[in-house]
Amino acid sequence: MAHGGGGRLMQQLLSTIIQPEFTNPLLNQNHDSTVFTVNTGKLAFTTDSYVINPIFFPGGDIGQLAVCGTLNDLAMSGAKPLYLSCSFILEEGFPITDLKRIVASMQATAAHAGAAIITGDTKVVDKGKGDGIFINTAGIGIITHNQVIDPKQIQPGDSIILSNDIARHGIAIMLEREGIRFNHKIISDCNDLSGLITNLLEKALDIHCLRDLTRGGLASGLIELATASACEFEILEKTIPIQDDVQSACDILGLDPLYIANEGCCVLFIPEAQTAQMLKVLQANPLSHYARHIGTVTAKHDRGRVSIKTHLGSHRVLELLSGEQLPRIC
Amino acid sequence: MAHGGGGRLMQQLLSTIIQPEFTNPLLNQNHDSTVFTVNTGKLAFTTDSYVINPIFFPGGDIGQLAVCGTLNDLAMSGAKPLYLSCSFILEEGFPITDLKRIVASMQATAAHAGAAIITGDTKVVDKGKGDGIFINTAGIGIITHNQVIDPKQIQPGDSIILSNDIARHGIAIMLEREGIRFNHKIISDCNDLSGLITNLLEKALDIHCLRDLTRGGLASGLIELATASACEFEILEKTIPIQDDVQSACDILGLDPLYIANEGCCVLFIPEAQTAQMLKVLQANPLSHYARHIGTVTAKHDRGRVSIKTHLGSHRVLELLSGEQLPRIC
Repeated sequence: MAHGGGGRLMQQLLSTIIQPEFTNPLLNQNHDSTVFTVNTGKLAFTTDSYVINPIFFPGGDIGQLAVCGTLNDLAMSGAKPLYLSCSFILEEGFPITDLKRIVASMQATAAHAGAAIITGDTKVVDKGKGDGIFINTAGIGIITHNQVIDPKQIQPGDSIILSNDIARHGIAIMLEREGIRFNHKIISDCNDLSGLITNLLEKALDIHCLRDLTRGGLASGLIELATASACEFEILEKTIPIQDDVQSACDILGLDPLYIANEGCCVLFIPEAQTAQMLKVLQANPLSHYARHIGTVTAKHDRGRVSIKTHLGSHRVLELLSGEQLPRIC
Repeated sequence: MAHGGGGRLMQQLLSTIIQPEFTNPLLNQNHDSTVFTVNTGKLAFTTDSYVINPIFFPGGDIGQLAVCGTLNDLAMSGAKPLYLSCSFILEEGFPITDLKRIVASMQATAAHAGAAIITGDTKVVDKGKGDGIFINTAGIGIITHNQVIDPKQIQPGDSIILSNDIARHGIAIMLEREGIRFNHKIISDCNDLSGLITNLLEKALDIHCLRDLTRGGLASGLIELATASACEFEILEKTIPIQDDVQSACDILGLDPLYIANEGCCVLFIPEAQTAQMLKVLQANPLSHYARHIGTVTAKHDRGRVSIKTHLGSHRVLELLSGEQLPRIC
């Protein structure tokens, strides 16, 4: 508990474990806020708290996830990530070795994206009042292009592109958490998409809207966007890429992969004419190797609607689930 | 748990409880990040998580605290708060009525400071894996003046001004948490100082450094600044304002008020020549009515040092405590 108290032990925790890893001139200001200068006027701001269980999983850990999630939220607004904040809520007794590993993972992920963690906070709660570690990150990104990337830009005729195969993150977490072992190679898709998106924007490819497919998966992301844009989307189920292992796990567990969380996968709404070129660029990048054209924005629709043509040839309307099939997935 | 799952229940929670309260055009973008434009290039960025127990206390609640804390951190860098993020970690079963009250309190506090909550997140953890509610806020502020407010600006000769009486927040929490009842009027000093600081800067009063005195109290704040500036501070104990009730509670409980947390109190390092004028301006504001000149920066000192002349006339060197006398104070 004393590590959260603002005294000598907290100083030690910061100066030996956290600051050496994140070190950069802005963080090292060591002031209540960090002061920085930006050259352009258009910025994006986002935040997420991460409560995933387990904190280490095939394909990542809570630190990597906490950085990727916020980088991706910035990227979905067309912003290039600049600065991150990082705040830990530790449960009394959380192993310092685990904290070190998580902090190193955050730093590596942020550095790889060219972003810096420049301000932070650490709190400690009593045993039994937390769950090991919760992490909040907030992020500031800069928008240097003139495209408006927003649900309201979605329009009839747009192609709907899925950036990669779905449902890996949720299934990887589920199997790890429940200790289910079978012969599979499922790892989370937890990845930073900001470089990929920046690259698309630099190539001047038109993008109307982006959305990463976290909690609630592909189906929830599409429903939210259909509602926000007041459009109808038609999706072809057979075009949605899913790894065989992931599909098998979904079948065994009775889960619908359309609603399973991803952490490195997004949908892109683009002018139909650019579909082939967009797919070519995406498929050339390992992070979006399985990119597919999965559907079309067909019409305006009062409340928004997503209908899917199933493998059997029937049509069904996708609905939001009341909750989440897998809690604490991020 | 379903309220954190990204499905219909989470949408409901957001659209009925949280968004109507925080509503503003930027938040209502409803995108992964919120996009905004600033006119000047110099910004400040900060974050804190709040895990205070109890969440409602005399003089405030966790929502007001979470907003004031981040506003104050921005103010301590000389920044005028613009935008806040807000992220909740709720424990399964947390009462919606309490959440409503907290959200309303956050909105009122932010609005009073002229700041807007423009992006956010909600997670839910299983019963027994959290403690009711934890809140993270991050904040962006804008710096429109040319003063550099930083520990490195502290120099020998500076006057050290304390903005108000100390130790109210920590003692109010302690008494409430432990159910200690005696005839007192102690309420937390939880307050937003950003208006006060902006006013000082607009009056072109010189400020070398500011620090709000949260965890670890006045003593820890001074020690941190002495270390960061490599200076020696000499403090006169008899000049430090403490309410009689607060002093009595400290005496009974065996606590040193110098180390007790505050949430609406700061120290200011200013040129000696401006001492009288600064005190006059501060004392005219109810938030700093008890402002006092409590000491002086006397010399450069290798590792920094804070010495205090006690009520008895002896001198002692202040040291960081190893932890905090009162855990989960913010």
